[in-house]
Amino acid sequence: MQNKKAVVLLSGGLDSATVLAIARQKGFACYSLGFDYGQRHRLEIEAAQAVAASLGVVQHLVLAVNLRVFGGSALTAELAVPKNRPGLHGGGEIPVTYVPARNTVFLSLALAWAETLGAYDIFLGVNALDYSGYPDCRPEYIAAFEKLANLATAAGVEARGRFRVHTPLINMRKADIIKTGLSLGVDYGRTLSCYDPDSQGRSCGQCDSCRLRLEAFASIGVVDTVRYVQASRDVAP
Amino acid sequence: MQNKKAVVLLSGGLDSATVLAIARQKGFACYSLGFDYGQRHRLEIEAAQAVAASLGVVQHLVLAVNLRVFGGSALTAELAVPKNRPGLHGGGEIPVTYVPARNTVFLSLALAWAETLGAYDIFLGVNALDYSGYPDCRPEYIAAFEKLANLATAAGVEARGRFRVHTPLINMRKADIIKTGLSLGVDYGRTLSCYDPDSQGRSCGQCDSCRLRLEAFASIGVVDTVRYVQASRDVAP
Repeated sequence: MQNKKAVVLLSGGLDSATVLAIARQKGFACYSLGFDYGQRHRLEIEAAQAVAASLGVVQHLVLAVNLRVFGGSALTAELAVPKNRPGLHGGGEIPVTYVPARNTVFLSLALAWAETLGAYDIFLGVNALDYSGYPDCRPEYIAAFEKLANLATAAGVEARGRFRVHTPLINMRKADIIKTGLSLGVDYGRTLSCYDPDSQGRSCGQCDSCRLRLEAFASIGVVDTVRYVQASRDVAP
Repeated sequence: MQNKKAVVLLSGGLDSATVLAIARQKGFACYSLGFDYGQRHRLEIEAAQAVAASLGVVQHLVLAVNLRVFGGSALTAELAVPKNRPGLHGGGEIPVTYVPARNTVFLSLALAWAETLGAYDIFLGVNALDYSGYPDCRPEYIAAFEKLANLATAAGVEARGRFRVHTPLINMRKADIIKTGLSLGVDYGRTLSCYDPDSQGRSCGQCDSCRLRLEAFASIGVVDTVRYVQASRDVAP
């Protein structure tokens, strides 16, 4: 019997690589989807391709959607990425690295591909703990998208609500995400989390994303094999 | 006082041109958004630009999203467009011209732009009567997207649900849409409805979209000023 198909959103970061490994472990035939959305660096796209290949996807697709034309975020426009900012874990305020409606855009495109493939399962690496400031990482947002998917599509209507958005990391701590991925064979050396890598592809070690990652690896006593320019002031690499 | 901003989805067709005129008449400063999504012809994109200019938008933006990579519809892939098919108005079955998750993709991108602009109003020309086979033209779908928009965005969360998706045509007949647009100064000669225009930009007159349009113009005794290759067998042009 053929495996059920799933579309997995794959950014090339630590979280989405882990999600892909989880989807594969659940027996899905995985179709991974990455985006070229006017990121400041192409390294993220290359990392996603490397992760997809190493985890045996059926197909990896990179779709160009130039969100930069809208402006509005440190990840797509020319704003400075915050380094070593206070309040790494806290507060619930919306960070400057927030991209308007990003998960909605990405999930919509995943849904379009899923419907074409005959897939009813979409996997997304959102996390409600480390990204508490992002409105589109909350469980109520995911539930609303799942409802929309089943109303929006011919497949959803005909199959009476079979679309599911899987967010296996949503309540996990970063350290547990890494432990899960390691147990499923993820090579985190292929991933890229940094918001601001240098021209040689080395991670900065000081943006929020690097610091959360370094802190989590340190907490479980595992060496992070990605290359860093400089470790964060407050986290031992 | 500055006018409130609205993002208007503008395909270059008859419906979206009318919606833009309605949004303008309601006093919004209009930002129109068109897509280059791998259509078979660029005429649709050019029609949208001509309509936007003629109706005085603040900015018209064409965003490239290559939905063709997903395959799956007569409007993006190499399937034949049905001509003079029986059952033009009926049945509720999903037509071959359906594009997977199209309105969800387009609304998501409109939402991203709206949030960046500080707009809370999105206008969309869906119609539940003539397009009864499209799941993403139903009122319950629009309501679900509106709910999602307010959960998905920083602006929605901070402004406690101010996003609105306006669908002024949803319960209108095509003939009433045209009458409304004419009263608001829409030049329908600049629009393009045909799914399969020829190389000279002439509409085929035989696809569902041409036939609905010709029938509606005929019913109100107005001459449709777009150029046709051939009128439909069952509708007087």
